[in-house]
Amino acid sequence: MKIGILGTGTVGQAIGGGLMQMGHDVMIGTRNVAEALARTAPDGMGNPPFSAWHKENPKAQLGTFAQAAAHGAMIVNATNGFAALDILKSAGEANLNGKTLIDISNPLDFSKGMPPTLFVKDSDSLAEQIQRAYPRVNVVKTLNTMTARLMVNPGQLAGGDHTVFVSGNDVAAKAEVTELLKSFGWRDIIDIGDITTARGTEMLMPIWIRLMMGPLQTPMFNFKIVR
Amino acid sequence: MKIGILGTGTVGQAIGGGLMQMGHDVMIGTRNVAEALARTAPDGMGNPPFSAWHKENPKAQLGTFAQAAAHGAMIVNATNGFAALDILKSAGEANLNGKTLIDISNPLDFSKGMPPTLFVKDSDSLAEQIQRAYPRVNVVKTLNTMTARLMVNPGQLAGGDHTVFVSGNDVAAKAEVTELLKSFGWRDIIDIGDITTARGTEMLMPIWIRLMMGPLQTPMFNFKIVR
Repeated sequence: MKIGILGTGTVGQAIGGGLMQMGHDVMIGTRNVAEALARTAPDGMGNPPFSAWHKENPKAQLGTFAQAAAHGAMIVNATNGFAALDILKSAGEANLNGKTLIDISNPLDFSKGMPPTLFVKDSDSLAEQIQRAYPRVNVVKTLNTMTARLMVNPGQLAGGDHTVFVSGNDVAAKAEVTELLKSFGWRDIIDIGDITTARGTEMLMPIWIRLMMGPLQTPMFNFKIVR
Repeated sequence: MKIGILGTGTVGQAIGGGLMQMGHDVMIGTRNVAEALARTAPDGMGNPPFSAWHKENPKAQLGTFAQAAAHGAMIVNATNGFAALDILKSAGEANLNGKTLIDISNPLDFSKGMPPTLFVKDSDSLAEQIQRAYPRVNVVKTLNTMTARLMVNPGQLAGGDHTVFVSGNDVAAKAEVTELLKSFGWRDIIDIGDITTARGTEMLMPIWIRLMMGPLQTPMFNFKIVR
């Protein structure tokens, strides 16, 4: 399948790599391809630069946000939450309309230091902001509640015995995304409901971050809904 | 141990019953004992009235909030979140100071209908509001992330293979509460950190409620942190 990924960070890299391993035809979108490849220093979180990832994944096509969106029959929003709406604007509504948009972004606000707060929450969510801005796009919120490496390879942790959530208004889009999640190895996929239920998953970030920074000291963990 | 419980709702009933079964000397506090026993209709959520519970647990001592707080060497805040600070005021600072206060309340605001929102979140929490109001009380936030029946009997679900979180500033108080949790059967107890980490557990409510109302249709589930 042709898939356009918006964002070259750790999430875009992980999703892009995972999708290519499964044979998908991936284009990764960024603001400026030459600039993205020219950066050789690690990012602010100490992650290797995109150019290092691209050397190891030379088959990944690169383009602008608009080119990646036009390329994809399905789009993945792997941007940081603050930039998400601006980047979708750059991607262009005509390149997004009628498509399924997997939204992995979280509304994290790091402006007041660590741990971050959420710039939208509780009575609204970033997923809903995106859905309202693009009513003809089928936004499916998922994969936003675990570290990037687990998203495409849940079996790395406890044999995959943990949960991923799905929220969205369009039943067919959720079914399409659920198949993709299964192909990554997800076995416990909970469809919580319409896009407003993304308020619940985005609000998992505060405890996730505190567990990671505090007692667990690693991002290699996940929520499981035991029932 | 002498334990005072503030609140006669489902949480107060469950915790009171659990503690008495383990031989603790429990007093349950309410605004007006005669009124609490006179109510014979179910509450707004369809739960049986406190008088029905008391008939089945006749050994439970009843008192005002102040009497229950004075009775306890340890206090449990099992009130609804909206009323918590008012009820602690009724309980009286002198009856609380120097003691461990287990805070199970959540800052749920039902005034705009279902699902509720949180009246404090993200950059503050109800647990912190209580800790600031009572600096000489050792507030330990715990048990606020699962249904009342599971709090005192986690083994009912998946043999107890799920998680309870603990937040608080006082290490000795957290150790005391952890022993109590173990006596209930909790095996996976995660100390997330100081009382500010209660922001994380209180913000689990939005997804908990949506899972309960949506796909799961039961409150008999819990979070497990798989790592």
